[in-house]
Amino acid sequence: MADNPTLDHIGIAVDSIDKRLAIYEALGLEAVAFERVEEQGVRVAFLSIGDSHIELLEPTDSDSPIARHLERRGPGMHHICLRVSDIRRTMARLSEQGFEVLSEEPQRGAHDCLVAFVHPKSTGGVLIELSELASGSD
Amino acid sequence: MADNPTLDHIGIAVDSIDKRLAIYEALGLEAVAFERVEEQGVRVAFLSIGDSHIELLEPTDSDSPIARHLERRGPGMHHICLRVSDIRRTMARLSEQGFEVLSEEPQRGAHDCLVAFVHPKSTGGVLIELSELASGSD
Repeated sequence: MADNPTLDHIGIAVDSIDKRLAIYEALGLEAVAFERVEEQGVRVAFLSIGDSHIELLEPTDSDSPIARHLERRGPGMHHICLRVSDIRRTMARLSEQGFEVLSEEPQRGAHDCLVAFVHPKSTGGVLIELSELASGSD
Repeated sequence: MADNPTLDHIGIAVDSIDKRLAIYEALGLEAVAFERVEEQGVRVAFLSIGDSHIELLEPTDSDSPIARHLERRGPGMHHICLRVSDIRRTMARLSEQGFEVLSEEPQRGAHDCLVAFVHPKSTGGVLIELSELASGSD
């Protein structure tokens, strides 16, 4: 029953990656990848921390979800992403228990992953991303 | 120079631990410890996730920082805690670089740790806790 999920990353909304890398570098963390995700209107930087990552998300489009989040809430922690072994099974279990999964099917995400989101209204204010490594799937 | 910090935990402010455990249990996570910290006016639950933890913080006192956070921002992600090897060195480096460390000396925290906080105004909206295992120190 238990999936033993791991923490894939913590997503943090920033006004500017260039400006906000300084605090993480001062803490001894290193940016290991930069990526632009056109369809989500963001530029992202990944910093390695132990077996996990911090993902800085900077809007490249004023209509993107991250731009709207910055307008409403200001910069700061945005979501947590849990790596699960079977995303469809996790999505089904959450839906059965009344948590609001934001899509019927997982979507293709970065790094060849399948991803889905759980609405913060059903989780106590935490936007939760689920992620499954797609390699090996057809 | 680099400290190779690890992610000790993610702190999440909740209205009620009993009510909010359900989503984490549905995700396959398990509460491994409960604690009451009188001087901070909170009850906390720790859930194990990989080598890290999720810490749920419920106010037990309407004047506590967590109660005020819930009033201002609602429930949700509250802070990230990085485990460092030498907290005084990290505090000094951050201060030198203009980040606002909230105390001159580290404080005694839970689990025999030394802790300090970095103000979110200087980090792009993220409250960052630093933690060093105190065992072995005098």
